[in-house]
Amino acid sequence: MFELLKTDAHSKARLGRLQTTRGVVETPVFMPVGTQASVKALDPRELLEMGTQIILGNTYHLSIRPGLEIIGAAGGLHPFMNWTKPILTDSGGFQVFSLAKIRKIKAHGVEFRSHLDGSLLFLGPKESMHIQRVLGSDIAMVFDDCPPHGASAGDVKAAVERTLRWAKECREQPRAPGQFVFGIVQGANAAKLREHCAKELVAMDFDGYAIGGVSVGEPEPEMFSAVEMTEPHLPTSKARYAMGLGTPAQLVELVARGVDMFDCVLPTRVARNGTAFTKKGTISIKGGSYKADFTPIEADCECFACKHFTRAYLRHLLNVNEILGLRMVSVHNSHLFLKVMADIRAHLAAGTFGEFRREFIANYRPTEKVLLARQMHAAAKQDR
Amino acid sequence: MFELLKTDAHSKARLGRLQTTRGVVETPVFMPVGTQASVKALDPRELLEMGTQIILGNTYHLSIRPGLEIIGAAGGLHPFMNWTKPILTDSGGFQVFSLAKIRKIKAHGVEFRSHLDGSLLFLGPKESMHIQRVLGSDIAMVFDDCPPHGASAGDVKAAVERTLRWAKECREQPRAPGQFVFGIVQGANAAKLREHCAKELVAMDFDGYAIGGVSVGEPEPEMFSAVEMTEPHLPTSKARYAMGLGTPAQLVELVARGVDMFDCVLPTRVARNGTAFTKKGTISIKGGSYKADFTPIEADCECFACKHFTRAYLRHLLNVNEILGLRMVSVHNSHLFLKVMADIRAHLAAGTFGEFRREFIANYRPTEKVLLARQMHAAAKQDR
Repeated sequence: MFELLKTDAHSKARLGRLQTTRGVVETPVFMPVGTQASVKALDPRELLEMGTQIILGNTYHLSIRPGLEIIGAAGGLHPFMNWTKPILTDSGGFQVFSLAKIRKIKAHGVEFRSHLDGSLLFLGPKESMHIQRVLGSDIAMVFDDCPPHGASAGDVKAAVERTLRWAKECREQPRAPGQFVFGIVQGANAAKLREHCAKELVAMDFDGYAIGGVSVGEPEPEMFSAVEMTEPHLPTSKARYAMGLGTPAQLVELVARGVDMFDCVLPTRVARNGTAFTKKGTISIKGGSYKADFTPIEADCECFACKHFTRAYLRHLLNVNEILGLRMVSVHNSHLFLKVMADIRAHLAAGTFGEFRREFIANYRPTEKVLLARQMHAAAKQDR
Repeated sequence: MFELLKTDAHSKARLGRLQTTRGVVETPVFMPVGTQASVKALDPRELLEMGTQIILGNTYHLSIRPGLEIIGAAGGLHPFMNWTKPILTDSGGFQVFSLAKIRKIKAHGVEFRSHLDGSLLFLGPKESMHIQRVLGSDIAMVFDDCPPHGASAGDVKAAVERTLRWAKECREQPRAPGQFVFGIVQGANAAKLREHCAKELVAMDFDGYAIGGVSVGEPEPEMFSAVEMTEPHLPTSKARYAMGLGTPAQLVELVARGVDMFDCVLPTRVARNGTAFTKKGTISIKGGSYKADFTPIEADCECFACKHFTRAYLRHLLNVNEILGLRMVSVHNSHLFLKVMADIRAHLAAGTFGEFRREFIANYRPTEKVLLARQMHAAAKQDR
């Protein structure tokens, strides 16, 4: 299913191709997030125009609303939402552990109360795989135990053992025709646990491997180190997916660390607050300095928003709560994430990824929070 | 500017053509409402795809946010919002009398407090025409006094006199190049006042005439009678515009009463609550009966929403507050209003408007509120 086309000479970056029953996904790839069967504020035409190859859906949310019966009756998630390209479904593990009120972790899954109406539900490897089979996703994820950032060593160890046990159960479940299943490596920032988890999963022979337990509130240096301690234990012949990440600069750095697939809610989430991503970092379109700025969000951007509208107009729309404002910033942000990945692929093919990476990182101004985390990390290193 | 192409043999319905500097508007026409420089939830491509010929903007809202300075700096409302077809701007009169906290009605306008931040503002004929000139609309409306439904006879009479005085002032103001100005007939449900107002305005020779003081909360029969008592006093050689109306069935009936132009917030406003217009009346897409209904909103509809999505999917989106849901119902509703007008024009051209009207009205189920108003009207008639 995964074909490794080329590996960068100066980093671990990989150019690849994922062959699914619904078409080819060129990697490295960014997957816009359609948690509830819709990439927030965008329609399928807009997604296709910006070069979307694959989107993400969510087992937990979709099984609560609209419910499996309705999506099943529609013939699966693709026809339900009218998306014909590949879909990856998350297993619901992350949501059960982060959104729901857990009642009891049992041997074969989790008993929890819906974040919506408090009703008592149960989700485990068997249930998750059944749901993902009915959703008919092209890539299903195993049901894992994703502990929060800062969990105790004992909790992290228990989560890894549970994740492995559940991965094995998932492996044995029936699948939708042509459906791939990816294992998820947990282990927080414990190198030994990450290695153990990765090796055990690889022994189970999944179709691809995800690095989970990132994007759970950890500072950036910890996120990179979790990826760095996991990646060497994953086979080069399978796709690697870093879950829930990240900013454009982080995507570039993660590609350089050998990751092929990404998903992140950031482009659409921050758009709803009027924050636009650019190749130089984020800007708040609502800012007064743009009130008479009749240039697009980014001068050289080819997205629908930048080809049609100015910062001044978008600022006005956002300030008077017109939906077109957040729509167009969502278009721009999602387009930018996809464009960065397309640029990465082009530079990998041309053998110029190193220069691209240097230039991109030099021009990209991270948020203050990220900068502070980096400073703290550097200071801690010096203290050692 | 206005060319009357044909008048229906069995009603007052007219087929016409309005020549503006930004292109021809075929009448009867429905104008989607873009109060704050955006037709709510829709982008210009969607508007063009559904056959929009002209949209409406609002002097009151736009002068408050983003303010005239910014739209002026953009070169006018068209470039500001990237809409190249004609725009009609309302004068702000209706909003000053309905939204703002009026402080004082003066000889040359109204002193009021902004509904937004309470700041003290002044808007009169001179100010309104100046704003509309800078906005650069293709059709400007005079600044009128629109009393609420149920205003006293004295108040209505005073409003008519004020409207006429202000209309004359508006007539004398400079305009944007090629900008037309329409007079507005007030007079509530007083036939004599409507006639007086219409005749005085016609004597001032405006480029077109609007029937105002409708869509102010009156029951449907009163709305029709206000139009019926005004229309005979308007010249056949100029376009007639009924402001703020109505449902699809009302549009058909108003065309039959000699009206050429319409605007209404209904298609986009009710869409945000999940209500869809159909040729048979409205349906609430959120309703449980649609949860596994995998047909489009309307089977024979050619809109983007109906070509791509099912009722079950739209219901899900609306129930989980996904923006795509209200977007697509806004697309469908606006498309339906425009399609009804296109059908009307085709039937007028073919000489079959009478049959179309009968069939449309027979199939269209009005809301309970409209039905009740009709019953009360019929009962009152019988009592007389």
